Amino acid sequence: MLDHLDDLHADLDAWLRIPSISADPAHAPDVADSAAWLADALRRTGFPTVEIWPTPGAPAVFAEWPSSDADAPVALVYGHHDVQPVDPPELWVHPPFEPTRVDGPDGPELHARGAIDDKGNVAFHLLGMRAHLAATGRDTPSVTVKLLIEGEEESGSPHFAALLEEKADRLACDVVVVSDTGMAAPDVPSAVTAMRGLADAEITLRGPAIDLHSGSFGGAVPNPLHALAQLLAKLHDDQGRVTLPGFYDKVRPLSDRERELMSRVPFDEQAWLAGPAASRATYGEAGFSTLERTGARPTAEVNGMWGGYTGPGHKTIIPAEAHAKVTFRLVADQRPEDVGPQLKAWVEANVPTGIEAEVRTPPGGVAPCASDLDSPAMDALLRAIGQAFDVDPADVLFTREGGSGPEADLVEVLGAPLLFLGVGLPTDRIHSPNERVLLPMLHRGAEAAAHLWRELGAMRPR
Amino acid sequence: MLDHLDDLHADLDAWLRIPSISADPAHAPDVADSAAWLADALRRTGFPTVEIWPTPGAPAVFAEWPSSDADAPVALVYGHHDVQPVDPPELWVHPPFEPTRVDGPDGPELHARGAIDDKGNVAFHLLGMRAHLAATGRDTPSVTVKLLIEGEEESGSPHFAALLEEKADRLACDVVVVSDTGMAAPDVPSAVTAMRGLADAEITLRGPAIDLHSGSFGGAVPNPLHALAQLLAKLHDDQGRVTLPGFYDKVRPLSDRERELMSRVPFDEQAWLAGPAASRATYGEAGFSTLERTGARPTAEVNGMWGGYTGPGHKTIIPAEAHAKVTFRLVADQRPEDVGPQLKAWVEANVPTGIEAEVRTPPGGVAPCASDLDSPAMDALLRAIGQAFDVDPADVLFTREGGSGPEADLVEVLGAPLLFLGVGLPTDRIHSPNERVLLPMLHRGAEAAAHLWRELGAMRPR
Repeated sequence: MLDHLDDLHADLDAWLRIPSISADPAHAPDVADSAAWLADALRRTGFPTVEIWPTPGAPAVFAEWPSSDADAPVALVYGHHDVQPVDPPELWVHPPFEPTRVDGPDGPELHARGAIDDKGNVAFHLLGMRAHLAATGRDTPSVTVKLLIEGEEESGSPHFAALLEEKADRLACDVVVVSDTGMAAPDVPSAVTAMRGLADAEITLRGPAIDLHSGSFGGAVPNPLHALAQLLAKLHDDQGRVTLPGFYDKVRPLSDRERELMSRVPFDEQAWLAGPAASRATYGEAGFSTLERTGARPTAEVNGMWGGYTGPGHKTIIPAEAHAKVTFRLVADQRPEDVGPQLKAWVEANVPTGIEAEVRTPPGGVAPCASDLDSPAMDALLRAIGQAFDVDPADVLFTREGGSGPEADLVEVLGAPLLFLGVGLPTDRIHSPNERVLLPMLHRGAEAAAHLWRELGAMRPR
Repeated sequence: MLDHLDDLHADLDAWLRIPSISADPAHAPDVADSAAWLADALRRTGFPTVEIWPTPGAPAVFAEWPSSDADAPVALVYGHHDVQPVDPPELWVHPPFEPTRVDGPDGPELHARGAIDDKGNVAFHLLGMRAHLAATGRDTPSVTVKLLIEGEEESGSPHFAALLEEKADRLACDVVVVSDTGMAAPDVPSAVTAMRGLADAEITLRGPAIDLHSGSFGGAVPNPLHALAQLLAKLHDDQGRVTLPGFYDKVRPLSDRERELMSRVPFDEQAWLAGPAASRATYGEAGFSTLERTGARPTAEVNGMWGGYTGPGHKTIIPAEAHAKVTFRLVADQRPEDVGPQLKAWVEANVPTGIEAEVRTPPGGVAPCASDLDSPAMDALLRAIGQAFDVDPADVLFTREGGSGPEADLVEVLGAPLLFLGVGLPTDRIHSPNERVLLPMLHRGAEAAAHLWRELGAMRPR
């Protein structure tokens, strides 16, 4: 079915050479170059409408290929063309922006920053569209296909919601297809059904007005570092549950069916610990499996903590301040804006006498989102994946993505249901050195996209 | 009695202009200059023997003025000529190495780094010796007076014990007079009777082999920052006691008499909180007063803590490592070398599954030390202070110093009992910006030294 694999490889290779790191202002020209490259590639693919949409930050790319069928549904593909920083550069076996082919146990791999997250996931749509037209013998796709590929996802998509509001008319669609996720394993075709939301906060505790000499004052005044340790130790109870009052109030309980579906996903915990998790043991909320903990349950993680003297040797002080950065992953139907007030109230109730607390919660956050498991669009996706991976659609499994993205904004602003079609793997080292894509997965992704446009097009009478 | 106040002021002014910061290698020439200046001043004062003793680090100054009385006791004055760094320099009202006279509520003050810690405390001995000779009409002091003024106290006295061992014969004495401490208040003459010891440690907790994405792994693997918070939260129990098993085993209990003596020291806790402690509340071991907590009880303080992402914004990681620096203040008869093994065993017993702990405890540490309250030498000191401050010796109070120094080495190597004669005040801002000495205290210190040599000389028949 795929006649243009070499084109896909050549295109992806060229695109991956552009270091479009949105978090680093020095790379802003590269992010712009990346948008320009993608726009050109979409034009070469045949999209009649291709536009670069500027934002106050990095530009997004919009493209549209209308179906000639007047009543065909409209699908909007979401992805991003910016990439994560490469730190630490010394851990890369191959230079991060010199895409390198490596033969791996599951087939050929391509190593580069962005190889899968998210240039690979976007690039397979170029080939997928050609394949769709070739297989159906059509001049236009079976559905009207729009793409919105943003340039700031790795920086928290700060201007994305505003762009959606501004361009809502152009983006109107019947279904959103998110291509920024993955599957359970190379031989386990699966569809993501949910992503977690995110709320973040910074806690500052203040004790003495200045750093004090621990000889003169040690043991007699509150130490903000002790207070911070005691506070954060209480953030989880002995069952691994987050202790903020109200935190779980809006969590949609996992149904028996959802738990059964998740339990079908093959998961080798020892291999996962030895590989991607790089950890010595699992840990988490009592009563839930590791896949449920990472995909279907909300969490609180301390991401950073600092205070006092951190240089060589020792400095005998009671520091004036202690700090922590904390993020919360949220699941449907939690709201990110609820977490700040819950955290503030909890901190106030738990700081000891003599310690002053400040909790900063930036506005925004990311809402969790979830697909409807029982919709005609989901059925179409399962059939498309089944055909691409040569399995029965009923054997395409459901997984949940633990990470967070701007997908909830798409649902909220455009009012369309979500599908996820991405071909990353848990072993792809996204955000880490030596990110890679497994090329056979990329080919299957292109096939799945080609089938998906046909399946969605068949959803309603033309 | 004091005819040479102007000399004292001029001398101290010149000495304070030398930035003898031992912790900063760039100031090594200044520390050497400081030693040379002191040697010259001691010669000008009349000491027949003055030597600069090099060490692998900064030089010490030794001086000796033998009494003409063959069987006179020998007193050794200990102090130091190096000073603390000045960070942060922008908080100094006057430049730290340009001594500046300021009129304060208790009389004229001199502001400079080292004004009291410890150049002021050493300088009053120059005037004290002249006053002693003038008042007694003698050519030599009533006791043989030796001085050992080291140059690395603010850097932890790394070569001091070795110097004591090497020069033990030259330093032989009947009593050690430590001049590196202070009194309770300008109108509360007092004698320090103990200093706390010190042991330090660095704790590293390791979780995943690399920083992990908290979206993919959050809530499912142990987070070293959570483990560190939980560990340090357990370092004290709910009574404020240190929880290391065995930590209190060798602590000499406070006798009722000692507690009664300490309770006589006037202490305005609200003023202390508003002033030197710069804190909103007291805190500490249940059942003990603030003065007991800082002077007579051992403590554990976290001095620094760090791990994960600490920059602007957020980074959603589970970090690979978390770190803490911890110091312990010790009281007689605790041994610093016991603390490392106690801490290691405790950490091992308290880290959760999946977290690996490393506890580094540098060799050495500082032993606690204490004076004998009921010795003839202590009686002589109380009489000398009483005369200098114009109070009955029975009204000279006892205090305890919460800090740590190399005084225990003097006791151990030289086998002589300890007295403390220093005129710092809790409000002198040692180690902080705007360090000062209250000049009337300096004058009283000189008087007390003059009396002390006479009182000690009268201790045994000539």
